[in-house]
Amino acid sequence: MAVDGFPCKPASTVVDDDFFSALMVAAPSTKNPFGVNSTRATVSVFPGLNTLGVSITRTDLAPGGINPPHSHPRGSELVLVVKGEVMVGFTTSTNLLYSKVVKENELFIVPRGLQHYQLNVGTGDAVFMAMFDAQSPGLVVPTLGLFATKPAMPMEVLTKTFLLGADEIDVMKSKFVGF
Amino acid sequence: MAVDGFPCKPASTVVDDDFFSALMVAAPSTKNPFGVNSTRATVSVFPGLNTLGVSITRTDLAPGGINPPHSHPRGSELVLVVKGEVMVGFTTSTNLLYSKVVKENELFIVPRGLQHYQLNVGTGDAVFMAMFDAQSPGLVVPTLGLFATKPAMPMEVLTKTFLLGADEIDVMKSKFVGF
Amino acid sequence: MAVDGFPCKPASTVVDDDFFSALMVAAPSTKNPFGVNSTRATVSVFPGLNTLGVSITRTDLAPGGINPPHSHPRGSELVLVVKGEVMVGFTTSTNLLYSKVVKENELFIVPRGLQHYQLNVGTGDAVFMAMFDAQSPGLVVPTLGLFATKPAMPMEVLTKTFLLGADEIDVMKSKFVGF
Amino acid sequence: MAVDGFPCKPASTVVDDDFFSALMVAAPSTKNPFGVNSTRATVSVFPGLNTLGVSITRTDLAPGGINPPHSHPRGSELVLVVKGEVMVGFTTSTNLLYSKVVKENELFIVPRGLQHYQLNVGTGDAVFMAMFDAQSPGLVVPTLGLFATKPAMPMEVLTKTFLLGADEIDVMKSKFVGF
Amino acid sequence: MAVDGFPCKPASTVVDDDFFSALMVAAPSTKNPFGVNSTRATVSVFPGLNTLGVSITRTDLAPGGINPPHSHPRGSELVLVVKGEVMVGFTTSTNLLYSKVVKENELFIVPRGLQHYQLNVGTGDAVFMAMFDAQSPGLVVPTLGLFATKPAMPMEVLTKTFLLGADEIDVMKSKFVGF
Amino acid sequence: MAVDGFPCKPASTVVDDDFFSALMVAAPSTKNPFGVNSTRATVSVFPGLNTLGVSITRTDLAPGGINPPHSHPRGSELVLVVKGEVMVGFTTSTNLLYSKVVKENELFIVPRGLQHYQLNVGTGDAVFMAMFDAQSPGLVVPTLGLFATKPAMPMEVLTKTFLLGADEIDVMKSKFVGF
Repeated sequence: MAVDGFPCKPASTVVDDDFFSALMVAAPSTKNPFGVNSTRATVSVFPGLNTLGVSITRTDLAPGGINPPHSHPRGSELVLVVKGEVMVGFTTSTNLLYSKVVKENELFIVPRGLQHYQLNVGTGDAVFMAMFDAQSPGLVVPTLGLFATKPAMPMEVLTKTFLLGADEIDVMKSKFVGF
Repeated sequence: MAVDGFPCKPASTVVDDDFFSALMVAAPSTKNPFGVNSTRATVSVFPGLNTLGVSITRTDLAPGGINPPHSHPRGSELVLVVKGEVMVGFTTSTNLLYSKVVKENELFIVPRGLQHYQLNVGTGDAVFMAMFDAQSPGLVVPTLGLFATKPAMPMEVLTKTFLLGADEIDVMKSKFVGF
Repeated sequence: MAVDGFPCKPASTVVDDDFFSALMVAAPSTKNPFGVNSTRATVSVFPGLNTLGVSITRTDLAPGGINPPHSHPRGSELVLVVKGEVMVGFTTSTNLLYSKVVKENELFIVPRGLQHYQLNVGTGDAVFMAMFDAQSPGLVVPTLGLFATKPAMPMEVLTKTFLLGADEIDVMKSKFVGF
Repeated sequence: MAVDGFPCKPASTVVDDDFFSALMVAAPSTKNPFGVNSTRATVSVFPGLNTLGVSITRTDLAPGGINPPHSHPRGSELVLVVKGEVMVGFTTSTNLLYSKVVKENELFIVPRGLQHYQLNVGTGDAVFMAMFDAQSPGLVVPTLGLFATKPAMPMEVLTKTFLLGADEIDVMKSKFVGF
Repeated sequence: MAVDGFPCKPASTVVDDDFFSALMVAAPSTKNPFGVNSTRATVSVFPGLNTLGVSITRTDLAPGGINPPHSHPRGSELVLVVKGEVMVGFTTSTNLLYSKVVKENELFIVPRGLQHYQLNVGTGDAVFMAMFDAQSPGLVVPTLGLFATKPAMPMEVLTKTFLLGADEIDVMKSKFVGF
Repeated sequence: MAVDGFPCKPASTVVDDDFFSALMVAAPSTKNPFGVNSTRATVSVFPGLNTLGVSITRTDLAPGGINPPHSHPRGSELVLVVKGEVMVGFTTSTNLLYSKVVKENELFIVPRGLQHYQLNVGTGDAVFMAMFDAQSPGLVVPTLGLFATKPAMPMEVLTKTFLLGADEIDVMKSKFVGF
């Protein structure tokens, strides 16, 4: 598979540190309109994961912050909350919504490919680890995939998708400039 | 895998017709706000596909009709246009948009899990066949997964996702009542 | 897997056309002893399919034309007839024969690896699309693999396989010269 | 997958013998027109293989006996000759023939799905073990799948496949009555 | 695969809590000779993981406690230390040892099937989460699989494995009574 | 997968011998403390196996010889005894021991990843073939992975694993010098 297509190091050059990563240590800034920041330890930045079928993402959420609805094409996501209270929800192929408020050391599982979100519903900062059964699970953020593409999505697609006028769409798009 | 979890018929009861389906024959009505109608021959309605790793969907589009942005969690999609002119586009994990106008007997491939749309840009009706490397590729329609879930998506998720007010969200939601 | 072993283009050089193919458009000549012509859109000629697990073949059949018994080592085949009337049949590991006359927009599924044929039983030309859950499903044509190999199959193998004399085998082989 | 679709025994009822089989011990008769007899230890007769991805077949060949050209839809075959001298050959998707005379304890590998044969070219009996990376690799014998199916293959398919007359086909079919 | 062989709940009975687990919350006692306690959230106790390809284990280590050398037949293990300082090491097929002291929020990856250990090298308690790309990764603890089996491993196997006498083996076995 | 990560030969350079190996022919010396010698035909020494999912190992056992407890991370093992009487046993994740004395042409299956041993319980030499559903099944020998690693396993890990003193461990380690 191309998504797993990284070469392996020659065995003689492998060292202990190849299997180690400190990527999850830092608490990144959540000062942005969504109050969210995700740090990914996928194979492209932690090469030791190559061929091993796992990766992890740390997501920090400011109070009230949201990790907006998105999906991962190539992996299920096991959410482990390490700080705070996070509402996690996902929708099925028949648009049923399953959700739960998840607290420290609690788990929530999101089936592969389904659209889901995480919302900080506690009073302080929240942090969760998202573990995937893929070294590169991929990311589809529908809002960015509609309002922030290069080149821009044809306006006709957007107006017909939302059944709104171009003026209303332009308002929506203006929120996503720079993402 | 649960998604493939259908039992097989006892071998002694298998007949020729188990491998046959006429589901793609009828041209369904496209009289709806999006001008689209998809007929699916997945394993749940064509049991002969069980364990065989393929399925197909016929999509009819009225002039100007759209198959709104969506993704399939468990399959790549090979689009074969059988009538008319269809603009097909998909967005990547880095929000690049690739698209093309596809005509009769031409092909367009959408990588598994990525968000894509089909828009009838011709002057008449259009029909395309979408072939999947999965007996049950699944379907994620972000708009329905935001505005038409059961139970309803919390308003806080929607306002924070679109960075809009509840009034504006209510207008958006009103378009999707009944889907 | 070696059969999927094509490198991916550098992401920065990918263009819209990489995901597009017009290979299925032309109606090739069926003027040959079998009255058949197959045009394949597998990964070797449609590189955009790489890693995506699907491919398609267009087969044109003259009136009475046959796509002789063959199998695909690496894929199930979903047959979609787009013109005419085609008898499709396959045999199982216990030599049961399942077959059906399939007409426009009707489907027939051939399980992976099994021997099958397609025969034009209508009065005019016929065309079908064969969709595979593999980017390179492979092709085993037993007659060619017996009578048209390089180097030639030992005569002892052929006489013992068919329980016929070398003279009779030579008659059979003469039909496949040049394939 | 249906081909792997056997239920597992309840853990509390599992005994040592579930993992054991003596199926390969007996030397079966090779008195038949082909001088061949294959004994299979696949999951249907050795249930302990269930889910474990391997199986084995013992094939006995009389002097001059042949295991006629055939393929296995779901497995590669590693041939280990345990007695005698066996010519093993297979043909590729482009009808190249690779073959070799294989002697005691020597190996020959046949890639999954490709058509191959084994011919006893020694002076005495021969025996080989064929090991598969599948608990149920399946079996496609083109001659049986043409001349010995139930129901019978339409004569039109046979005459057009071999470019011969019905009389000649009837001669060929007569050799396979009772298989 | 049998290891994934759990039936799915009927869709109509699925509730939010099916995707939630609090199994990782409690800090279990580490008062035992090894100073270790592992709590597993695999599919057998967290059924919502069924078919989703992930699971997690929480391991608590007393100061100086060890999670003795073991392997997981069906999964890679991504170690996330959540408290303390843990030396993690694994050995390869050629008996090279790779190890590292891992601290809070740091990661260490153990390739699937390889023997590894975790040792608390800090001054206080330690806790780590082990994430797997399998809903039921399995567990092989060589010491238990030698000294604590039912029925008992034949003494001849043990003496020959360690090249020691039966008396010495009996001393070793005595440490593992009751596990 | 990296374990399958060998390039394929250019098709034009492939010859008959690429699919052949005589690695299993020689009977190697079993003069060593364990009375065992294993000869492996995995992809690294039999390149024709590349991508084909199978490999084989020949193990010779002197009278009373043992193939000490070990596991294969990436493959199930189907044991075919070709000479003598071999006790084969494996332990499960719950430390149940299943074993059987296996004689000429008899089979025993060891599920993937589980710890197992083979002991010659006959009066003469014994030989068995171990077939794997992997081109490179890997090898974990717990004793070597504890007592013969490079660099050496920390003594603290060993004493805590066996609940023994350093002196006793040193005696154990002394047996494995040079392996």
